[in-house]
Amino acid sequence: MHIDLNSDLGESYGSWTMGNDSALLRVVSSANVACGFHAGDPLVMRRTCAKARAHGVRIGAHPGYRDLTGFGRRAMDYDAASLTAETIYQVGALQAAAFSVGAAVEYVKPHGALYNRIARDKAQAMAVIEGLLPFRLPLMGLAGSPVLQWAQESGLPTIAEAFADRHYLPDGSLASRNLPGAVLDAEQAIEQAIAIATGKPVTTQTGEELVVKADSICVHGDNPHALEVVHRIIDGLKAHGVVVSNGR
Amino acid sequence: MHIDLNSDLGESYGSWTMGNDSALLRVVSSANVACGFHAGDPLVMRRTCAKARAHGVRIGAHPGYRDLTGFGRRAMDYDAASLTAETIYQVGALQAAAFSVGAAVEYVKPHGALYNRIARDKAQAMAVIEGLLPFRLPLMGLAGSPVLQWAQESGLPTIAEAFADRHYLPDGSLASRNLPGAVLDAEQAIEQAIAIATGKPVTTQTGEELVVKADSICVHGDNPHALEVVHRIIDGLKAHGVVVSNGR
Amino acid sequence: MHIDLNSDLGESYGSWTMGNDSALLRVVSSANVACGFHAGDPLVMRRTCAKARAHGVRIGAHPGYRDLTGFGRRAMDYDAASLTAETIYQVGALQAAAFSVGAAVEYVKPHGALYNRIARDKAQAMAVIEGLLPFRLPLMGLAGSPVLQWAQESGLPTIAEAFADRHYLPDGSLASRNLPGAVLDAEQAIEQAIAIATGKPVTTQTGEELVVKADSICVHGDNPHALEVVHRIIDGLKAHGVVVSNGR
Amino acid sequence: MHIDLNSDLGESYGSWTMGNDSALLRVVSSANVACGFHAGDPLVMRRTCAKARAHGVRIGAHPGYRDLTGFGRRAMDYDAASLTAETIYQVGALQAAAFSVGAAVEYVKPHGALYNRIARDKAQAMAVIEGLLPFRLPLMGLAGSPVLQWAQESGLPTIAEAFADRHYLPDGSLASRNLPGAVLDAEQAIEQAIAIATGKPVTTQTGEELVVKADSICVHGDNPHALEVVHRIIDGLKAHGVVVSNGR
Repeated sequence: MHIDLNSDLGESYGSWTMGNDSALLRVVSSANVACGFHAGDPLVMRRTCAKARAHGVRIGAHPGYRDLTGFGRRAMDYDAASLTAETIYQVGALQAAAFSVGAAVEYVKPHGALYNRIARDKAQAMAVIEGLLPFRLPLMGLAGSPVLQWAQESGLPTIAEAFADRHYLPDGSLASRNLPGAVLDAEQAIEQAIAIATGKPVTTQTGEELVVKADSICVHGDNPHALEVVHRIIDGLKAHGVVVSNGR
Repeated sequence: MHIDLNSDLGESYGSWTMGNDSALLRVVSSANVACGFHAGDPLVMRRTCAKARAHGVRIGAHPGYRDLTGFGRRAMDYDAASLTAETIYQVGALQAAAFSVGAAVEYVKPHGALYNRIARDKAQAMAVIEGLLPFRLPLMGLAGSPVLQWAQESGLPTIAEAFADRHYLPDGSLASRNLPGAVLDAEQAIEQAIAIATGKPVTTQTGEELVVKADSICVHGDNPHALEVVHRIIDGLKAHGVVVSNGR
Repeated sequence: MHIDLNSDLGESYGSWTMGNDSALLRVVSSANVACGFHAGDPLVMRRTCAKARAHGVRIGAHPGYRDLTGFGRRAMDYDAASLTAETIYQVGALQAAAFSVGAAVEYVKPHGALYNRIARDKAQAMAVIEGLLPFRLPLMGLAGSPVLQWAQESGLPTIAEAFADRHYLPDGSLASRNLPGAVLDAEQAIEQAIAIATGKPVTTQTGEELVVKADSICVHGDNPHALEVVHRIIDGLKAHGVVVSNGR
Repeated sequence: MHIDLNSDLGESYGSWTMGNDSALLRVVSSANVACGFHAGDPLVMRRTCAKARAHGVRIGAHPGYRDLTGFGRRAMDYDAASLTAETIYQVGALQAAAFSVGAAVEYVKPHGALYNRIARDKAQAMAVIEGLLPFRLPLMGLAGSPVLQWAQESGLPTIAEAFADRHYLPDGSLASRNLPGAVLDAEQAIEQAIAIATGKPVTTQTGEELVVKADSICVHGDNPHALEVVHRIIDGLKAHGVVVSNGR
């Protein structure tokens, strides 16, 4: 048994630093690298690719809405042509950054509000998918959500992603962050990660059991506590015979 | 005999339009496409690449300083690592845009203040060259300026560019735009373009004769008058047996 | 009888020009000046204020979402504190620009997607209103929409705005631009403007009669045809004894 | 005897935090608040003004070049009209933010590369001064540099600023940060601050004695060590009978 662990990296910008990339690159198997629209800048991107390569971590493009001030977390309307073009732009910029340090972009995981929107909004989803088709790059998206099916129907490989620290609803969607109890505590997150990785059901926010089939689990490491949780998830996975691997 | 004619294209941004790309694409052989930092946006870039491809016009990346308000025309200091990374970012973004419409980027011509700076500033020049080396993309730069030699010494192919409408100084540099007489009138520009294309000397601002060896001549078409000059240059070249061609 | 005519101005940005401000400033009584977030830059703002003052045209701040690429026309989510702060920022920047040329900002009309959103979304509306309260600046908003009532309840003066060239629905809202017939032709626009200015009913898209009570009518002049319509509206108003005036 | 202590604050942006504003606001008497072009965003600006007011700290506008990625630390060329307009824009935006929380901007200190440039470049200096004249806001600039004289000749009040932790050259300019020994260690910085505040000479980098006449001393607190130095400077000033005060 193996499972991929992915995390958002390269989110520093100019003189501002964010996250703990060095620590995360030692433990995750996939790095979602910001592409400059919601976070990241060209130098940060290049350096993050070089570090990911040095650690043998798979590089994914992490394109977002063009909203630096809002960190790409604000829902935005987009016409399809612009969204397709911005996807291509961001992915291409990261491909070049990766190529320049001897690495390559191997998948694409949209960020924040874009990630949430395309999970169920077909117009924006298809705009992103159209942007990825020329590159045949796998789309990482919410496990069980329509976007993965739309991608597959378009001929695009997909990576189903689950979340360790978010409560699921019975239909497989995530409980809204704005509601109480949406974010799991450390113990629950570790338990949920192990359940997902081993094919066992998780307990939804309303108490039902739900099997979340996922290729990758998203973890966060932007503070010492979060990083500690990641380490404990990995220990738990090991104890259950699950290898952290991006499957290459 | 043949000569390449290049022009800056794809300089619209969002709701703002600039230039007369459709008319220029019918007459030039190379298009310097803005990459989003000083002009251009992802959608404009993609559409410009598609149009250039449809017209058989060679696509060049036209990266600039990160200065949208100043259109990349303001001199800026840059540390080398950032400039290299921004060059890679912009070129990669355009490569992806071109690839997505079945085209490819075939050279790189830095824009505006960056173009002028690297002609003679070795630190910024080498930073740009380092950004192009992984891609083996030819650098288009000012004919006779040190940057072309630095690029060649670094193993990068080069394209020497001359200007139809700018007065040269005896040392092969351009007279500063800020000085009177720096910009030639239509008749002079046509004459100078033909001289350059046929290997004959041009008359410098101070009256000397100077042979400008160039692979490409830069023309502008952002107003009806400028476009008329381009047409007359092309007629003049034809009359002297010079074919407009990017050499592919 | 008098009516205010307002138009969006100062929408150029850096090297990109937009609109026909000089022509419009000769005919409108109020200028909605972009504040740099969706259009306009500090220099354009200052020059537009100077020109408006020279023409005796009332200056209004025209703040928008922070979306230069999308011209502030894309719906965006915002937390209230950020929207209040961005409103204050944009209004303050324009106040300073106006003050520096001996003029003053006399009202605020939010732009594009923000204008549409606050017409009925109380959270974003109240965030904008909170931003205007310290300045006691009148809010120009859609005639008959809740935002004007919310502003008044908050103690803010209001300016009710009607549109010459948009079909109304029976409830006083505007027919969506995305639907056929939403935008009126020249003859209809002239007729509707005169009806609104003279207190007569307009014909809604579904055929009912509706009296639109408005203090100001929005006109556009970004192309020769639009400008011609404005001139004919003004002629029509005169013929009906209506004076174009901002009421100062 | 009293001396003003100023520090750069409000340099966070969007989701990125920077500095230790809370700690600094307890000890400095003047806060240079970033205005959104090189750092700071509208929400950060408003909150920083509110906090400064709560601590009785004088608020200064800290405008910079329009270079968010480079944090305003890169030298840039500017035409005078744009620089004047951007100064007005940034100052006005902060004035509104301050006014909205019951505070006011009381001086202006340009940031980074702009600060350094105007110290001796008359064209850019006069462009900034022209932007401040309508507001009669004092300009804080490098003690002994020409910009203060140019401001005074223009009728603008000035605040002469000295640096605790930078070596001076015999002509009163600062040793370049790029040269070894330009930045003083903690002991030297404390000693220099006290010397400046008490009117005693400092020792220049080349060993001469120099009296630096200053109204304000710039301190930094972005890390625990820097903050400790600030506290020790304040203790040292107290021990020499110097009161930290902005003079209000």
